[in-house]
Amino acid sequence: MSATPTVVTACMIVIGNEILSGRTQDKNMAYIATRLNEIGVRLAEARVVSDDQDAIVAAVNETRARYDYVFTSGGIGPTHDDITADAIAAAFGVGIDFNPEAVAILEAHYEPGMLNEARMRMTRIPFGAALVDNPVSKAPGFRLENVYVFAGVPSIMQAMFEGIRHELVGGAPMLTLTIASYLPEGALAGPLGQLQEEFPGIEMGSYPFYRTSKFGTSVVLRGTEQANLDAAGERLRQIVRELGQEPIEESDI
Amino acid sequence: MSATPTVVTACMIVIGNEILSGRTQDKNMAYIATRLNEIGVRLAEARVVSDDQDAIVAAVNETRARYDYVFTSGGIGPTHDDITADAIAAAFGVGIDFNPEAVAILEAHYEPGMLNEARMRMTRIPFGAALVDNPVSKAPGFRLENVYVFAGVPSIMQAMFEGIRHELVGGAPMLTLTIASYLPEGALAGPLGQLQEEFPGIEMGSYPFYRTSKFGTSVVLRGTEQANLDAAGERLRQIVRELGQEPIEESDI
Repeated sequence: MSATPTVVTACMIVIGNEILSGRTQDKNMAYIATRLNEIGVRLAEARVVSDDQDAIVAAVNETRARYDYVFTSGGIGPTHDDITADAIAAAFGVGIDFNPEAVAILEAHYEPGMLNEARMRMTRIPFGAALVDNPVSKAPGFRLENVYVFAGVPSIMQAMFEGIRHELVGGAPMLTLTIASYLPEGALAGPLGQLQEEFPGIEMGSYPFYRTSKFGTSVVLRGTEQANLDAAGERLRQIVRELGQEPIEESDI
Repeated sequence: MSATPTVVTACMIVIGNEILSGRTQDKNMAYIATRLNEIGVRLAEARVVSDDQDAIVAAVNETRARYDYVFTSGGIGPTHDDITADAIAAAFGVGIDFNPEAVAILEAHYEPGMLNEARMRMTRIPFGAALVDNPVSKAPGFRLENVYVFAGVPSIMQAMFEGIRHELVGGAPMLTLTIASYLPEGALAGPLGQLQEEFPGIEMGSYPFYRTSKFGTSVVLRGTEQANLDAAGERLRQIVRELGQEPIEESDI
């Protein structure tokens, strides 16, 4: 493998009791992971924390120092349990107040008399933050240094992410090749370990499955160089054939 | 509200690049969250970390000191990327080796000659750990102090959890009452904040939805005392009616 490209990393922080209680299944993590891959940013960690200021502050401060980008989702709505903006201000040690630009956006959006005290809470933005556009329901997210603060509702979170995606500076996009076979993981494991040693620049993950009464394994190869990835894939097909099975390509899985 | 019951807390650590790459959607977190609720253990945090020893060690050591229980899922299979057992040993500063009890389980399970070197990796267990039964595919999980180490495949993780559930000592089970209405979150937010002040012992979360072309909000009330929860629910129904809508009960959502 040639020179290791710079790895740009990110962490996702999902904020909300509803995920931790099992009531709601998070959908934002997989979305962000997939989109980041395409621009060469690696989601290196994700956390789910409760609607608790200390928990949010700790997670944000631990991760913003460790990763290039941090994305949060949830907790920026109008209700008393939406405390993300205040927690972010506390994490950065900055003040927070009604943001004139955010107020103007909501004043233009709501009918006269409908911008009540609760909705005005959504215009409280930490000092120094840049707003993130919300084309769905208008109340903005924001960015403070390397921390992007998004809404939790998936359609809004996705729209916010797409609006700022051009700001993100990634490394080489991560390329993926998946090759499956009806070999149990334990039969493939030895040769796969040797293949990993041959191709240290390729990340190899193996995932067992059970389908039509047969055990099988999907092997996912990931790397930033197409030629290297193809070579590893070709060797893997050969290994599968030597073990008496036919490799199954991604398109046929 | 009467005396605050002891809160027993837990953290879930999902281990695996496949979740962070967006390839696989985690299903274990919601399962554990729901089951813990029933026995009065609160899932207070969840993390997803990559197949990287430093990342696993850091997550385990930060969380096992902070929470009553830690559950990990993933990374205990036969392949080179399954490094959880070694990482747990490193986190606790203990050795690791083939565990005779685990070896006996796999020897009894596999046909002669099939227990190869890769499968033998699954019998490497940190010193001092107690095995966790795997009724699905035999290779065991384990527990070291307050850290339970489970497989990542959901059917196996669930079976392992059910096998150890009787060991967990919880607090008062968390009771839930959900009341929805076709009121936008911003209209309900003010009165809901007041209701929260009236019932400090009830946790109140509000979740906007959009259905049949109408905006609405589900309010989830959570508490450990049935009478208190019922009283808060009755006040919430009254609030919804005062705002000109009919409360929708959970069973009708």
